Amino acid sequence: MKIDLQKVLPADIEKRSFEIITEELGERNIPEELAPIVKRVIHTSADFDYYDNMKFSEGVVHKISKALRNGACIVTDTQMAKSGINKRFLETLGGEVFCFISDEDVAKAAKENGTTRATAAMDKAARLDRPVIFAIGNAPTALVRIYELFSEGKLKPEAVIGVPVGFVNVVESKNLILSSDMPHIVAAGRKGGSNVAAAICNAILYMMRDGKL
Amino acid sequence: MKIDLQKVLPADIEKRSFEIITEELGERNIPEELAPIVKRVIHTSADFDYYDNMKFSEGVVHKISKALRNGACIVTDTQMAKSGINKRFLETLGGEVFCFISDEDVAKAAKENGTTRATAAMDKAARLDRPVIFAIGNAPTALVRIYELFSEGKLKPEAVIGVPVGFVNVVESKNLILSSDMPHIVAAGRKGGSNVAAAICNAILYMMRDGKL
Repeated sequence: MKIDLQKVLPADIEKRSFEIITEELGERNIPEELAPIVKRVIHTSADFDYYDNMKFSEGVVHKISKALRNGACIVTDTQMAKSGINKRFLETLGGEVFCFISDEDVAKAAKENGTTRATAAMDKAARLDRPVIFAIGNAPTALVRIYELFSEGKLKPEAVIGVPVGFVNVVESKNLILSSDMPHIVAAGRKGGSNVAAAICNAILYMMRDGKL
Repeated sequence: MKIDLQKVLPADIEKRSFEIITEELGERNIPEELAPIVKRVIHTSADFDYYDNMKFSEGVVHKISKALRNGACIVTDTQMAKSGINKRFLETLGGEVFCFISDEDVAKAAKENGTTRATAAMDKAARLDRPVIFAIGNAPTALVRIYELFSEGKLKPEAVIGVPVGFVNVVESKNLILSSDMPHIVAAGRKGGSNVAAAICNAILYMMRDGKL
């Protein structure tokens, strides 16, 4: 078989991909500071449903960039999301990414309390002595626990990126975050994932790096 | 807001999710040894398009399980895919997962040859002295390089899981694999991702662990 590829330099592939996404979005309009986020999520999933799904609370993107400049860390619910976040620019801000899901003390607490490890991981995150942005791409129980801790006054996240994927309690857990006063970015419905959570973080970090935020 | 969730024990969430997926697939039929793979990909993406997208070469699932039992390793093109693969059962087989994309020698070779790092990472994988299963969720250039090396007789993978996502050369790169004699699992079209690559590996590993393969 002849290898018949579009002649695009490696460095230009991402640029060309975003051009195609913009072309195919056509008349569909996205506010300027949100467009790079929605487009990066479509880029990471090839799924235009995210144009409709993604919900942003008022001013959330600026709140996240401000928090990151003030040294906020990012807490994920999976190693995959952690591994997908580009740490290079984040580290120049003094930020870092934590994922507690595989920690021994988290496994022990989950077992003792009969909860998921994701729930116990959020309890551990609530004990961090620094501002936190959550990026949740997998576990609805993580979102539920964040909501509970916030409601009880035990946690005040800078923002919650709530994009778990799935079929059981996923929609309900996202509705909790959508209904709350926490600054949030949520992919409504069943869709999302660790890759989507990482893509949202990266979109914001790249805007900051490129002086657009 | 009242927290109104389905009462499902954490351990039963995955089981219940697969029941919902099976219900919603309805009359759509999937061969028995492929169903756990297709369903796990839908589980990881909440996207039923994968029912239509996923293409399997003849006997590929048994070829992969046999190769894994014979000590094959898995090579991914991203740290995310590597991080998403469940290593617990794989390690009992003497297997492991490699991702060379961040290696210094790969970066150097890519720069010298004017290729992507994914291309250089596949060259490095071709020098492994053991059977290899590729799990490619991101870089079309990785698939193209695997195809070239195979065509030149320099690489004979046990199987290629080819599910990059995107808009530039993704469809073309998957068509190369689909047209080849390499055993393969491909998500045709633009969709895929590191999470999908990991889900396919995990589905096969879980079937083996549970004595179904």
